[in-house]
Amino acid sequence: MSEQHLVIGGNAAGMTAGSRAKRLSPSISVTLVESSRHISYSICGLPYCLGGVVPRFEDLIYFTPESLRNDRGLEARIETRAVELLPSRRSVVVEDLRTGRREHLRYDKLLIATGYRPLSPRVEGIDAGGVFTASRIEDGEAISQWLADGQRRRAVLIGGGFVGLEMAEALRRRGLDVTLVEKSPAIFSAFDPDMAAILEKELAANGVQVLTHRSARRLLTRADGSVEAVELEGSGRLLSADMVFVDVGVEPQVELAAGAGIRLGQSGAIAVTERMETSIPSIYAAGNCAETLHQVTGRPVVNPLGTVAVKQGRVAGENMAGVVSHFRGAAGTMAVKVFGLSAARTGLTADEARREGFRVVEAKIQSRFQAQYFEGKPATVKVVADLDSRRVLGAQIIGNEMAAVRIDIVATALASRLHVEEACQLDLAYTPPLGALWNPILIAMNALVRKMEGR
Amino acid sequence: MSEQHLVIGGNAAGMTAGSRAKRLSPSISVTLVESSRHISYSICGLPYCLGGVVPRFEDLIYFTPESLRNDRGLEARIETRAVELLPSRRSVVVEDLRTGRREHLRYDKLLIATGYRPLSPRVEGIDAGGVFTASRIEDGEAISQWLADGQRRRAVLIGGGFVGLEMAEALRRRGLDVTLVEKSPAIFSAFDPDMAAILEKELAANGVQVLTHRSARRLLTRADGSVEAVELEGSGRLLSADMVFVDVGVEPQVELAAGAGIRLGQSGAIAVTERMETSIPSIYAAGNCAETLHQVTGRPVVNPLGTVAVKQGRVAGENMAGVVSHFRGAAGTMAVKVFGLSAARTGLTADEARREGFRVVEAKIQSRFQAQYFEGKPATVKVVADLDSRRVLGAQIIGNEMAAVRIDIVATALASRLHVEEACQLDLAYTPPLGALWNPILIAMNALVRKMEGR
Repeated sequence: MSEQHLVIGGNAAGMTAGSRAKRLSPSISVTLVESSRHISYSICGLPYCLGGVVPRFEDLIYFTPESLRNDRGLEARIETRAVELLPSRRSVVVEDLRTGRREHLRYDKLLIATGYRPLSPRVEGIDAGGVFTASRIEDGEAISQWLADGQRRRAVLIGGGFVGLEMAEALRRRGLDVTLVEKSPAIFSAFDPDMAAILEKELAANGVQVLTHRSARRLLTRADGSVEAVELEGSGRLLSADMVFVDVGVEPQVELAAGAGIRLGQSGAIAVTERMETSIPSIYAAGNCAETLHQVTGRPVVNPLGTVAVKQGRVAGENMAGVVSHFRGAAGTMAVKVFGLSAARTGLTADEARREGFRVVEAKIQSRFQAQYFEGKPATVKVVADLDSRRVLGAQIIGNEMAAVRIDIVATALASRLHVEEACQLDLAYTPPLGALWNPILIAMNALVRKMEGR
Repeated sequence: MSEQHLVIGGNAAGMTAGSRAKRLSPSISVTLVESSRHISYSICGLPYCLGGVVPRFEDLIYFTPESLRNDRGLEARIETRAVELLPSRRSVVVEDLRTGRREHLRYDKLLIATGYRPLSPRVEGIDAGGVFTASRIEDGEAISQWLADGQRRRAVLIGGGFVGLEMAEALRRRGLDVTLVEKSPAIFSAFDPDMAAILEKELAANGVQVLTHRSARRLLTRADGSVEAVELEGSGRLLSADMVFVDVGVEPQVELAAGAGIRLGQSGAIAVTERMETSIPSIYAAGNCAETLHQVTGRPVVNPLGTVAVKQGRVAGENMAGVVSHFRGAAGTMAVKVFGLSAARTGLTADEARREGFRVVEAKIQSRFQAQYFEGKPATVKVVADLDSRRVLGAQIIGNEMAAVRIDIVATALASRLHVEEACQLDLAYTPPLGALWNPILIAMNALVRKMEGR
């Protein structure tokens, strides 16, 4: 009988791992177990569907169970929840959510790729109709249905992270009034406040009302149980709302693993080796439920992004198929488009670096990524380094549509622990329509060197 | 009396060096000597001026002698040629090209930044009217004047390098028939032939006739001395031509240095230390007349690009002002836009790597830099590595408008000598409108790993 691989979670990490293992060792039987109705989708595309940029939710789905079987030879069981993991019996109890029927699935090797779940603020009325988060295609479909009658005019977003910003744009495109309520003094904690302020302006310029340093006290509902308003803490001010979208963070889904005695890390996610092994033999974990080594701090963190999930999944699949490979960590790179701007970060922000105990030097410049006579608007580039080691610690970029992708230069520099003196001389591409003679990242790095020497 | 810095050459390297030295040490007197009528211009922008993308030649000029004096405190003498360098007297004989008057300019520190000159093929009639190269603003003005009457309908380009390709686009935009004659079996030797073929198709699709493996035997002229036709070697075929543009390579201008006994390197350019010092004390060289350490081969090469020139200039200026700094070499990064495509390279091509004696492994893939549902056309990415050391040696990218700038990821990887196993896991930015979950560079690096293991 062929070796049985069981993968709990049919999205980025699980899909990639299963496909990779099957490809390397075609005799393996691979079964994915997925609690939602869809496998293998781009949840990141959801706001673009809602905003009408991508025509249909199906466009976000790479494989159906049928095409996955035909193209890659993997089995997928959707609407099936893993209820309990029994390592001593090498089996997982799963429940078919349509029928309630439970059964044991045996495995020789198991991958836990259960991902994250969106956090919900502890606020009265948060279960009202018209309150949404986004982690599955079904969430997008539900929002779409909610908005379908064209009568919902006012949306309140609670929390201004990546998804919140993208949703703000999508809902404005749909013609809704949008108010963003953010607990912290600045939106978008992935950026330093001075950088986030640029995005806040862009939101305001596009008709999004941003209320920072405020939080929701409770949600008021209509007779039919749907949300009517959001009451703010303190002032008691009421924000009318036909819809509420919540983006206050996520947490790794680790119940299945924890229940089986698998070790969790300090971050709360599943602790894994560089080969994505958990503390129990033959059980692997990958993706947003597993820890990720941060390339700058060297510490395990929760880094709930698809880019990290697919890489971890690939490494898990290789090791499950008997090919030794190692996951080399992540740099904390993220990008987002906010109306006419793009924004990206990698490594540590200045605030994060200070919290990590580095002696932080930072420099912020404005410059064009294209030649001046092509009249690109200048981008803002902020770079952060450690005064003691002179290592580059991170960067943030906000600029025109394609400015953010230049963050990859710094992400690559972080992977190899470049020093500022090296980073300010990188041989980057230049041709007038596409690049600048002095790439703004080099200008920022040079500013950093000057600051370091000025001390 | 203040320290006298003399800079021969008022463009990228010279301008940058003089400005940097003056900034670090304001008491220094800096004089630039420039043989053309302009200092501080973007020669790379010339095709865009000719093609009408950039309105005026003046838009390519960053500083005039007046604005340079006012803004940065540097003196510039234009239309002045350095005739002879006398190190024992610490002076340079210069000639005013307008008056013929010669004089000695004394220096405490001298920078030679004389740049390159375009090569001219040894072909009868090459001095005819209507035959052009491009290394100065004046060349652009002359071409513009030549085309001004609207009667020139046919252009022949001899040589298909970067500038040749950009000129092909510019001249097509002006409505000319354009034929490109290239000696080698493929245009654009900066790319491997399989990659150059993509650009050749793009040229053809935009009405440029490309004749490879052909060379000009002689130029036929009209009674007024202007070019009439290009006769090809071998077949004797005649190509009608109202204009000829030559792009068959460049050579460093080293006569001034060589005449004074300054050591040249094996590449034919001026040999320099990492501090941009020549073999004679107090004399520095930088930019396209000086050698550049290649970060992949570790050998000095001629790398005639503005990006390298400004970095060398900066380092030269710092050392001339007494601040120790080092130039860390270049990776051989270049980018070009050709009609609807952008193309870039860094490091070594597969052909170059084989010539350097590496055990070459190469992989070529097609993939999108943006999420599939944003429907970007796939780019072609080729990556090259060394089987023995597993180091990444180089990459080439051809794709949509912004695809080429992603070469910077590999350029940064080369600066830190990344191995393929590291390069295939870089934490690069992703958000559907701007990036792909698997950046094509990662896909190409993974293909490379598979190939290496398949052997």
